[in-house]
Amino acid sequence: MDASWQPGRWGAQHESEALDARTRDFAQQVLGVPVPAPRPTMQAVRASRWSHGDLEQLFPGVNGSVDDSERARYSRGMSYLDFLAWRSGEVLDATDAVLFPDDHDQVLSILQTCSREGVVVVPVGGGTSVTGAITRDGSQAPAIAISTRQLNQILDVDVESGIAHVGSGVTGPQLESHLVGTGWTLGHFPQSWEQASIGGFIAARSSGQSSSGYGRIEDMLLGARVATPVGTWDVGGFPAASSGPDLRHLVLGSEGTLGVVTSAQLRVRPRPTIREYAAAVIPGDFGRAIEALRHLAQSPMRPTVVRASDTAETDALLMMSMPRGALGRAFSAYLKVRSALPGSLLILGWEGTRASDVAAARAHTREILDGAVWLGGRPGRSWERGRFHGPYLRDALMDQGYLVETFETVTRWSNVASLHQTVQQAARSALGERSYVMAHISHSYDTGASLYFTVLAGGWSDPLESASRWRAAKADITQAIVSGGGAVSHHHGVGRDHRAWLPEQVGAIGMDVLRSVKTALDPRGIMNPGALL
Amino acid sequence: MDASWQPGRWGAQHESEALDARTRDFAQQVLGVPVPAPRPTMQAVRASRWSHGDLEQLFPGVNGSVDDSERARYSRGMSYLDFLAWRSGEVLDATDAVLFPDDHDQVLSILQTCSREGVVVVPVGGGTSVTGAITRDGSQAPAIAISTRQLNQILDVDVESGIAHVGSGVTGPQLESHLVGTGWTLGHFPQSWEQASIGGFIAARSSGQSSSGYGRIEDMLLGARVATPVGTWDVGGFPAASSGPDLRHLVLGSEGTLGVVTSAQLRVRPRPTIREYAAAVIPGDFGRAIEALRHLAQSPMRPTVVRASDTAETDALLMMSMPRGALGRAFSAYLKVRSALPGSLLILGWEGTRASDVAAARAHTREILDGAVWLGGRPGRSWERGRFHGPYLRDALMDQGYLVETFETVTRWSNVASLHQTVQQAARSALGERSYVMAHISHSYDTGASLYFTVLAGGWSDPLESASRWRAAKADITQAIVSGGGAVSHHHGVGRDHRAWLPEQVGAIGMDVLRSVKTALDPRGIMNPGALL
Repeated sequence: MDASWQPGRWGAQHESEALDARTRDFAQQVLGVPVPAPRPTMQAVRASRWSHGDLEQLFPGVNGSVDDSERARYSRGMSYLDFLAWRSGEVLDATDAVLFPDDHDQVLSILQTCSREGVVVVPVGGGTSVTGAITRDGSQAPAIAISTRQLNQILDVDVESGIAHVGSGVTGPQLESHLVGTGWTLGHFPQSWEQASIGGFIAARSSGQSSSGYGRIEDMLLGARVATPVGTWDVGGFPAASSGPDLRHLVLGSEGTLGVVTSAQLRVRPRPTIREYAAAVIPGDFGRAIEALRHLAQSPMRPTVVRASDTAETDALLMMSMPRGALGRAFSAYLKVRSALPGSLLILGWEGTRASDVAAARAHTREILDGAVWLGGRPGRSWERGRFHGPYLRDALMDQGYLVETFETVTRWSNVASLHQTVQQAARSALGERSYVMAHISHSYDTGASLYFTVLAGGWSDPLESASRWRAAKADITQAIVSGGGAVSHHHGVGRDHRAWLPEQVGAIGMDVLRSVKTALDPRGIMNPGALL
Repeated sequence: MDASWQPGRWGAQHESEALDARTRDFAQQVLGVPVPAPRPTMQAVRASRWSHGDLEQLFPGVNGSVDDSERARYSRGMSYLDFLAWRSGEVLDATDAVLFPDDHDQVLSILQTCSREGVVVVPVGGGTSVTGAITRDGSQAPAIAISTRQLNQILDVDVESGIAHVGSGVTGPQLESHLVGTGWTLGHFPQSWEQASIGGFIAARSSGQSSSGYGRIEDMLLGARVATPVGTWDVGGFPAASSGPDLRHLVLGSEGTLGVVTSAQLRVRPRPTIREYAAAVIPGDFGRAIEALRHLAQSPMRPTVVRASDTAETDALLMMSMPRGALGRAFSAYLKVRSALPGSLLILGWEGTRASDVAAARAHTREILDGAVWLGGRPGRSWERGRFHGPYLRDALMDQGYLVETFETVTRWSNVASLHQTVQQAARSALGERSYVMAHISHSYDTGASLYFTVLAGGWSDPLESASRWRAAKADITQAIVSGGGAVSHHHGVGRDHRAWLPEQVGAIGMDVLRSVKTALDPRGIMNPGALL
């Protein structure tokens, strides 16, 4: 969380206030007239059990705070429900303290104290969870949040091996700005990139917009150091090995329930000097785009970025972001003449260090995507400029009393079209008339693809009522996802919001295995209880 | 294990007898005059605790055997030590019975019975372990081996998603010959491919010769069904997900200590219609080849096969396999004129379904490997023909009283050259004068590479003496690997032979985690005790 943090908003208010005219028009047309919602405000906060003096006694030498605003800030993530809560005016059930340890050893000693004293610990990186992974859930035990903000050192870059060793509190921009001089990039750009931390990426098992080219965080994590209540746990460290089970994959996705990742060794890749983005439309229903993406994913030369919007999202994007006036009309006319609409908008990106490699990859893509109507570089570049803009837009839409939330899943190719329809129907029926349900494939693999849904609805101005309506709708939708053969989550994680469905995916024995690992590392059960398990 | 199985040999004797003249000359020159070793024979076998009737009572409806030869066969793997034991004439401490279940449910019920009765269970696929993973270790408990031979069904091929669902007893050739009609390939070709099983690949976390193109088995495993003493454990099933820790990675590398993998969903890839292999020499010391492979591994378009022999292995391969007579002399002269020797022999392969893709990849490789002396397609094709030949050669060399064994490790690029030297020196000093130590990089990754060593020595005709000498040498070598920053194993696994070094790699807390998982799934500790943990 940076200094510009505001309660209940992704970004500074001046950015989120701006809802441009086309987006406003689109929202009014499909969701109805906006009804302003209460603004998010810093709320009254439950008193801490401790004074600052208590904190110093419990955790000597560790920076910490019992201030209401710090405690509030570290008690919620950034889901729609979290942001609604900031608008509700209710008294906030905040954590008792926030600690800002400087190094691994301080984290270890904090965990030992908390284990001894029975204090609940919630590790918080950028605080951008959208699954309730760091959200207070009514637990009555004394609790602290550990912020990894101070664990922000770049420890080493092995330029020969392409391995960056960094503190877990390093954010996306901090890492990339350090790497820019070394000729390397991590290439991990989830939409939360501006604020999220390396530790959070690992804990949530995240995936970025360039995953086709750079892989998911689990493909990047060579090794990690984890502070646990029973001591220091070092996992991995090798490019690959057959030395028994790979314990990195227990840390990845552990969501703070096993310990605190304090540093990570990350595979980095040659920093691209050439970046090309383009847009195209695959005419016809979304099934044709799914088929095209499958061929691309199963081919040997993949673009760095591959994204395909369903016809509903394509319509929305064209309405919201196409050039205005005469140029816009000409552009739409061109698409219609080419019979591209209804169709699926594709965003494709090719990155590399040599023009010939990038050109070869682009030519390969165009050859496989025959039948696509190419829109030139402008919409692609526009996507790149706006790639981290989504969360700001959410702030503005929520101010207008609209529901706006996203969720995602993943399944094998042979089930993508069917799951897309199932979830779309479940969402529409859960949200009723004045709603808009759209989706895109954000990540594609040899064997399948993710589906990333955005839902919008009108008439959600009352924060408390909206929270309970959304909980019910989300339950229906998540059940439809899991019953339809989708994973509980593709890149947001389980947290508290998806916890109820994890056993259906993992099975009773899988849950026993997860619990046995937790008991080995956290025998007192202090680490983020209520998340994941 | 197929019908041609013979005690203490990889292949049928007529194949292994043939030690060609050049190999014989090379061996004599560097290892000394051969001294014939005792031939491997079926040995006297410790009596079973059970009669066939007992077996039928304990495991009703399950095919099983208490025959001496079946029990003997399922009590050892195929390491140098295993093969020496077949030559020793000692009484064989065989398992009490071998069971051949037909399906998952039979495996489940066997495990329940064994858990109740305290019977040790060793799951055996192809029986090709070279790390003692299935080798009897003096345990006094009643024991059975479960052969997965009958779990050899191809259950389903999802041709849209590229996922093959197969029984764990399916061997490499069985799977590929089934897939040939579907247009797909698994692309997993370890040297044990002819005999090893899918379940064994998974249990040992194996990697094949085409891993640069197709990845390791963990990149291929979408999901697995595992029979455990506490019930059925289904893991994975999604292309990728962020639904908590990824439990597939506990099954991968579990070496039969958690349960029996009974079926697997495997990612398959478009079956190549074009396969090109070529050889080249990088002149100078091995460090230059390491550097060249690093550039290739960190580039966007990798060959399917990348292998680089150190100068010692290059010399040996040239002596053993170059064309004889005038052509051979001309070839060597050519290399010397080009100043290629001493140098490192590279084998490179490019596979694909479109000529343009393969040509682009080949051109990319040649551009990155500037400075290489290309030897034309013939040595590459010769490598392809002989890619599964190594184990047969071992049989013949052992008949001549030579030590011949392999071991492997992996480390980051910045440590490959140093680790290569460290291990080479340790092996030479452990094996003494009449030995030959050579290595190649068999698998390369963005961040590092494997080192695959072959050691040969003369004067190892006495099986019992050789076994104890090799145990001592191997201990020195393994310690040098681990102390030098290498993993305990890159693709052979831990088994019983590397077990002592695993804690050094995984740490005390990592070992606790592994044990906690084992306890959750196998509370009585019946699954392959002594392997891995």
